[in-house]
Amino acid sequence: MKLSRTNKILSKMKEQGISQALVSDPYSIFYLTGFLENPGERFFAVLLDENGDHKLFLNILFPLDKDLGLDIVSISDTDDIISIVADHIKAGTKLGIDKIFPARFLLPLMDKLPDNKFVDVSLLVDTTRMLKDEEEKELMRISSELNDRACQFVIDNITETTSEKDMVKKLLAYYEEIGVEGTSFPPIIAYGDNGANPHGLPGDRLPKPGESIIVDIGGIKDKYCSDMTRTVFFKQPTPEDKEVFEIVLEAVKRGTELVKPGVRLCDIDAACRDYITEKGYGEYFTHRTGHQIGLEDHEYGDVSSTNEMVCEPGMIFSIEPGIYLPGRMGVRIEDLVLVTEDGVEVLNKLNKEFVVIGED
Amino acid sequence: MKLSRTNKILSKMKEQGISQALVSDPYSIFYLTGFLENPGERFFAVLLDENGDHKLFLNILFPLDKDLGLDIVSISDTDDIISIVADHIKAGTKLGIDKIFPARFLLPLMDKLPDNKFVDVSLLVDTTRMLKDEEEKELMRISSELNDRACQFVIDNITETTSEKDMVKKLLAYYEEIGVEGTSFPPIIAYGDNGANPHGLPGDRLPKPGESIIVDIGGIKDKYCSDMTRTVFFKQPTPEDKEVFEIVLEAVKRGTELVKPGVRLCDIDAACRDYITEKGYGEYFTHRTGHQIGLEDHEYGDVSSTNEMVCEPGMIFSIEPGIYLPGRMGVRIEDLVLVTEDGVEVLNKLNKEFVVIGED
Repeated sequence: MKLSRTNKILSKMKEQGISQALVSDPYSIFYLTGFLENPGERFFAVLLDENGDHKLFLNILFPLDKDLGLDIVSISDTDDIISIVADHIKAGTKLGIDKIFPARFLLPLMDKLPDNKFVDVSLLVDTTRMLKDEEEKELMRISSELNDRACQFVIDNITETTSEKDMVKKLLAYYEEIGVEGTSFPPIIAYGDNGANPHGLPGDRLPKPGESIIVDIGGIKDKYCSDMTRTVFFKQPTPEDKEVFEIVLEAVKRGTELVKPGVRLCDIDAACRDYITEKGYGEYFTHRTGHQIGLEDHEYGDVSSTNEMVCEPGMIFSIEPGIYLPGRMGVRIEDLVLVTEDGVEVLNKLNKEFVVIGED
Repeated sequence: MKLSRTNKILSKMKEQGISQALVSDPYSIFYLTGFLENPGERFFAVLLDENGDHKLFLNILFPLDKDLGLDIVSISDTDDIISIVADHIKAGTKLGIDKIFPARFLLPLMDKLPDNKFVDVSLLVDTTRMLKDEEEKELMRISSELNDRACQFVIDNITETTSEKDMVKKLLAYYEEIGVEGTSFPPIIAYGDNGANPHGLPGDRLPKPGESIIVDIGGIKDKYCSDMTRTVFFKQPTPEDKEVFEIVLEAVKRGTELVKPGVRLCDIDAACRDYITEKGYGEYFTHRTGHQIGLEDHEYGDVSSTNEMVCEPGMIFSIEPGIYLPGRMGVRIEDLVLVTEDGVEVLNKLNKEFVVIGED
């Protein structure tokens, strides 16, 4: 049990008069216990208790490889699991439930516990996970450092005969070679007009002279996700396309410079968006500026026009403005940034200035 | 909208006095509408209505590529989505909710609709999905035919220098070559003692003379999953290991022969299990005999000692007995079977008799 993390959540529960909470998100369970399991359709939850009497409900099908430092309540497929769980809940109290707790367990549990008040405590857990501790920061640095190398590898290996899909395959092999466990999300390597779709799927397309190449990739190292984007050009682009690139580059710089404790996330979004709008491309920046990241690629708290939450030390999020010109090209540049005590640490060190590849 | 499927569910809802149901499982939504989307953390549901006035709540981020033949209620991230959904629910009625409907939407919806009774209708949906219609049967046949080819490919390509992981890579490339869209589950290719763990992960191990090789693989074709297992030997096994193989082979045959409408799934499990037990290996058959399959690799209704549900025409499930001898070897043989009007159609046609590979 990671007690410093657990206690942060308990103190938030106390403020809200919540005596126990069932946490079922596997990543939150890992965050609290160091044990990661994908339970599929089976019941799997930590019961947090105000008195520190925490339990892990664990199906006997999922073997533990270490002592987690909390009581295990073993359950099996033939047990009446809802009754077992209900027996651990204090009658008449406010019971916390997290966001993904599924109806197939929640509805019968509510029937069994008519005197409890069920409340969603995801925010308490997610806002705790949002502020990375020292161990997590270091893992995030390492994960991003590997991603920098992988991104450079992609940029170095694109040729006029390498399709988007081929490049994804080479990337996956390279990730494996450098010890990356998996991808944070399906890699996006998009040439030319395919890059005009922010979520374009890699296909059989080859790069053509002057086209932009979006490389948006993320790996998982020791359970922590990286995520970055670079845009380079295959041979010299038109002056206008280069100008679009420079606008996005300036936008990501403006957003990043602003990051420090107390600054609102919506203002970081605005710093990127306003610059792009001022340059006449506002309507082509079609998504939010960024998202928090850690054990999952997308975590609670985005960098968007409506999120007035302020930066706090330990937050790690992406800054990834883009301009997408339908039928023609896209440019996106993305770094992960860590909010420090007095400013920002950019986790991605790879060059993001204008680069042309494929020149003779 | 697939009306014949929808109407089956509606008639079950009617029997239980349920006037509307929110279905949020993306596979169930695909089953009903032909539209597959992974909504991540976003709200995504079909509202089934007793009067046929069905709606799809769809975030504007997920573009539709065709007319689905039902009303779309467009929602966006900045909407008060729970209020929008609540406005479509008839006050005071029984409202169906499906199994994975998450607490983050369910709890606030219950607060908004204090006079509705919320009931889990997953069984109504899942028992409908369990009986495949003609279109689905044909897709399942095609998916299994491709899987047969892939399994043969694996068996043909294992050499003394091919690790489990290498073989998985070759398999994935072959799947892609033959038009398989993805895997139903991470492929299991396990040599020797690694096969003694029913869910052993492929590693760097090479096959040694006399070892069993478990090939448990499944692909996805046109959204439908295949799943099969073959066990072969790398060079001649010991007589005892061959005997273990023959016991599992006879078990799978006995289970399969029993399949026809009216036979209980637990009796199919027993047919496999009792034979293995009779031969002295009962304690080494450590899992259920099978599971239903279709749009998902594991669907509702398993072939286990406790499931007294009877076979009905249109069911498709696996029969996959195994014997696992810790530290030594494993044998598992698995076919998908379709319950027909009067018996069984085995979807996997690939040889499952004793085979030795790697001989000079």
